[in-house]
Amino acid sequence: MKEESKGTEIGELGEFGLIEHLTKNFKIKNPSTIKGVGDDAAVMDYGGLETVVSTDLLLEGIHFDLMYTPLKHLGYKAVVVNVSDIYAMNAKPTQITVSLGISNRFSVEALEAFYAGVKLACDYYGVDLVGGDTSSSRQGMVISVTALGVAPKDKIVYRSTAKEGDLICVTGYLGNAYLGLQILEREKQIFQEHPEIQPELNKEEAFIGRFLKPEARKDVIELFAQANLVPTSMIDVSDGLASDLFHICKASGVGAYLEESGVPIHMDTQLKIIEEFKLDPITVALHGGEDYELLFTVDPKDLEKVKVLPNLFIAGEITSKEDGIKLHTKGGNIHALKAQGWQHF
Amino acid sequence: MKEESKGTEIGELGEFGLIEHLTKNFKIKNPSTIKGVGDDAAVMDYGGLETVVSTDLLLEGIHFDLMYTPLKHLGYKAVVVNVSDIYAMNAKPTQITVSLGISNRFSVEALEAFYAGVKLACDYYGVDLVGGDTSSSRQGMVISVTALGVAPKDKIVYRSTAKEGDLICVTGYLGNAYLGLQILEREKQIFQEHPEIQPELNKEEAFIGRFLKPEARKDVIELFAQANLVPTSMIDVSDGLASDLFHICKASGVGAYLEESGVPIHMDTQLKIIEEFKLDPITVALHGGEDYELLFTVDPKDLEKVKVLPNLFIAGEITSKEDGIKLHTKGGNIHALKAQGWQHF
Repeated sequence: MKEESKGTEIGELGEFGLIEHLTKNFKIKNPSTIKGVGDDAAVMDYGGLETVVSTDLLLEGIHFDLMYTPLKHLGYKAVVVNVSDIYAMNAKPTQITVSLGISNRFSVEALEAFYAGVKLACDYYGVDLVGGDTSSSRQGMVISVTALGVAPKDKIVYRSTAKEGDLICVTGYLGNAYLGLQILEREKQIFQEHPEIQPELNKEEAFIGRFLKPEARKDVIELFAQANLVPTSMIDVSDGLASDLFHICKASGVGAYLEESGVPIHMDTQLKIIEEFKLDPITVALHGGEDYELLFTVDPKDLEKVKVLPNLFIAGEITSKEDGIKLHTKGGNIHALKAQGWQHF
Repeated sequence: MKEESKGTEIGELGEFGLIEHLTKNFKIKNPSTIKGVGDDAAVMDYGGLETVVSTDLLLEGIHFDLMYTPLKHLGYKAVVVNVSDIYAMNAKPTQITVSLGISNRFSVEALEAFYAGVKLACDYYGVDLVGGDTSSSRQGMVISVTALGVAPKDKIVYRSTAKEGDLICVTGYLGNAYLGLQILEREKQIFQEHPEIQPELNKEEAFIGRFLKPEARKDVIELFAQANLVPTSMIDVSDGLASDLFHICKASGVGAYLEESGVPIHMDTQLKIIEEFKLDPITVALHGGEDYELLFTVDPKDLEKVKVLPNLFIAGEITSKEDGIKLHTKGGNIHALKAQGWQHF
C-alpha cells in the first residue's frame, strides 16, 4: 500500500502522543459522555436507561486484506460492525472505544486515514470515541472495537424472545457483501499473476462498496421507534442469514422455516453470482454474511406497523422447536438448514 | 507449549460452540448485569451511578511470550490489567468483555486454561464476563479486554485534578514486575542455548509471580471508601512511575518532584537488580512498569486518612507547571524526569 511505504514514522510521535494526535478532532456529541479519551477509563452517565455493550475483533488476514482495503474504509467498517450490534438490540449507540495493534511499517498518515474513517462513522452514527489502546504489533494489524449504547428497558430486543407464529423479517437484500468480497479476491489473484492488468471495478462498485464500507441500519431502528414497534427478537446479519436465524432459534427455543422465494436477493446479484461465479444465489444469501441488514421477528398483529420500512422482506415464520429449522425451496422441497457462517477455524 | 500440541481441536466445537463452552461456568454476580454473553450486546442497568469503561489490547510477542507464560496466568492477567484501570478511577469494576484471536494450533484445553484464569480473576474481583468475540488468528494470540465499572459521581477520580502542594503517594513496591520479566527473559535465553539445563526459578518466585500474575489494588479502593478519602488524582502504574506521573502532570497542568528516597523499592529487589542485572534500581522503578500499584495525589490535610493503607509511600509533591517534573536524587542532585515507558514502537 502506498500509504504504508512513506510518511511520518510513528516513533516520532511516541506511543502517548500518537493516540492524542489521532483523536484530537473527535468532539463529544452525547450528554451521557462525561469523560472520553485521556484517563484510565471513560466515564458515562446513563441516568435511568439500560446500557448495552458489544465488542468485535478484526484481524488482518482473517477479516480484512490490506491489499484491497483502503484504511479509511477499514476505520469506517470497524465502527459500523459494532454499532450494528447495538442497533440489533434496538438500542442507540452512544460511545465506542477503538484499540489498535499496528506494525511500525505503518506511517502516521496511514493511521490518520484509518481514524478519518472512524471519525466519519462516529459522526454519521452519533457516537463518541471515548478510549482505546494503541500498541505495536509484530503480527499484522489488529483492531478491537467496543461499542456502548442505551435504550429504555422495555425497548431492548433480545435474540431469545422469538415465539411460534412470529413472522421472520429481513431489512434488505442479502449476498451483495459476499459477492463484493469474491470480486475483490478474483481481482487480487489476477493482479498477482498479471501485475500489468489494471482491475476494472467501476461496474462492480455496488457489491464492492457493500463489502468494504457497509452501513448499519440506524434508519430501521428510528422507524421502529416512530411506528412504536418492538420486534419480538432481532439480530444483525453478520455471519449469514442461516447462522443468524440459528442464533435466534437456539436462544429462543424455537424452530423456523424460511421460504426461498422470501429471501431477498437482488436480480443483479443473482445474475452475477450465477454467471461469473457459478454459485447458487440462495447459498450465498444464506451463508455469505457481512450484509449488516437486520433479521427480526414480529408478532403477526404488528404486520401493518412493519410495512413502514422501505425495503422489508418477509422471509418465513417461527415454528416449534420440534419442527427444526427448514428451508422451503422454490421447487417445493424442504431442506434442513445448517448454521455455517464464515469458517474462521 | 505442552498444552498446544495435543487435545481437542477447536474446529470440533465450531466457532459458535466454542465461546459457549468456554463461558458456561461463569455465573452472573452483579445485579446491574441484566444480560451477559449470548446476544449482540450485553445489557446493564446502573441506576443512578456513573459508568466507567476501559480497554486493553494484549498481543503475543509484544505483551506476552507464550514460551514462559502459562495460559491460566495470562487469562488472569488480562482481566487484572483492565480492572486495575477501573480501580484507578476509584470505581468498582462490574463487567468485562474478553475477545480472543487464536491460531488453530491451540487446543480447546489450552483455551480452557486461559478461561480458567479469566474466571479466577472474575471471581476474585467480582466482575461478570458479559461478552466477547472469538476469531481465528494467523498472527499469534490476540487478547482484547474491555472493563466496565461504576462509582457515585462525586467519588470518581481523574488524572486531571492534581493540584500544587498535593502529596504524591504510591501503594507498594515498584520494579518487581520488571525484574521478574528480566529473569524470565534470561532463563529463556539460557534454555534456547542449552536446552539440557533446567531453569532454577524457585528463589525468583516473588518477582516472576509479580510479572506473570499481578494483582490490582482492589483493597486500596475499599480502604479509601472506609476512610472516606477521595484522592485528588490517580492512575495505575502500568507504564512506569515516571510515565504515569507524567500523565497526571500533563492532564492536571502541574509539575512534580519525586524524592529518590521516597520511591519504594524493596531491599531484595535492589540487591538483585544491582548484582545480577547491573542496572540502577531507581531506573527500574521509574521506567519498568507493570507493577499495577496505584499512584495518587492527596491534599496534605488528608494525610492522616492515607495512613490507614498498609504499605503507603509518600514519594514527592505536586509543584507548579513551570517547575517541570523533577527527581531529587539521594545524592542531592536534581534531574528532569523523562516519560519513557515500554518502548512498543
